[in-house]
Amino acid sequence: MKKLLERLKFDEKGLIPVIIQDVDSGEVLMLAYMNEEAFIMTMETGKTHFWSRSREKLWLKGEESGNYQQVEDVYFDCDADTLLIKVRQVRGACHKGYWSCFYRQMKKEGEVKIVGKKVFEPKKVYGPKETIEKTYQILEKKKKRK
Amino acid sequence: MKKLLERLKFDEKGLIPVIIQDVDSGEVLMLAYMNEEAFIMTMETGKTHFWSRSREKLWLKGEESGNYQQVEDVYFDCDADTLLIKVRQVRGACHKGYWSCFYRQMKKEGEVKIVGKKVFEPKKVYGPKETIEKTYQILEKKKKRK
Repeated sequence: MKKLLERLKFDEKGLIPVIIQDVDSGEVLMLAYMNEEAFIMTMETGKTHFWSRSREKLWLKGEESGNYQQVEDVYFDCDADTLLIKVRQVRGACHKGYWSCFYRQMKKEGEVKIVGKKVFEPKKVYGPKETIEKTYQILEKKKKRK
Repeated sequence: MKKLLERLKFDEKGLIPVIIQDVDSGEVLMLAYMNEEAFIMTMETGKTHFWSRSREKLWLKGEESGNYQQVEDVYFDCDADTLLIKVRQVRGACHKGYWSCFYRQMKKEGEVKIVGKKVFEPKKVYGPKETIEKTYQILEKKKKRK
């Protein structure tokens, strides 16, 4: 893992942007950020983990909604400052209920059009805080065991 | 254009990350950054423009190599802090001569494998500075006319 980490350039905040792409359709699902820990957790568990810049914490994608991303392939770019990860997405990637976070198109004339597929109802899948806490406790225990 | 700019959240440096995707194959080609000016130039000319963080200047993709990107569709994400642009790529996107900048794959075991397609010889396409200057002069003139 150290060998891979050494290949990557994290920015001044210790983060690297990560493009998430659906392995089957090639659709771009989202962009998020990883710190070193999130990268290690992703590679070791096979599920994407990110650093939430707004909540300032490590975040297992799907921890609350169950909408996990199973890692298939990991790529990095010529400057080694961006990752591209192909995943199998459970249910939908966007917390607004769309398959992809890029569900809105911009037209030159100033118009914005919703073009994405709505695949779930956010209110129904973002559950109680306890679920998240439990998931985290399990992950933390696993980490300590290593 | 103002209406579109108002929808986007540029970061504390005035930048927004932009994912560039091949409109035909769906292959992710690169990630780069735009400031407001680069966004306007992209929308108005139909060719991608970025802000080069290393050179600290506006940059027309392909200005030196001729490897332009013709804009087809523009999307933005749920948080309005990332753009996704589908393009028709001339020759290849990566300055190292590959079709995509994500030409290297990371294996869990620490191995890095070149999986991308080499499509041109960088030495042959990155030409004299004069070409770039000329392109810019034309664009600047166009801007002033508006």
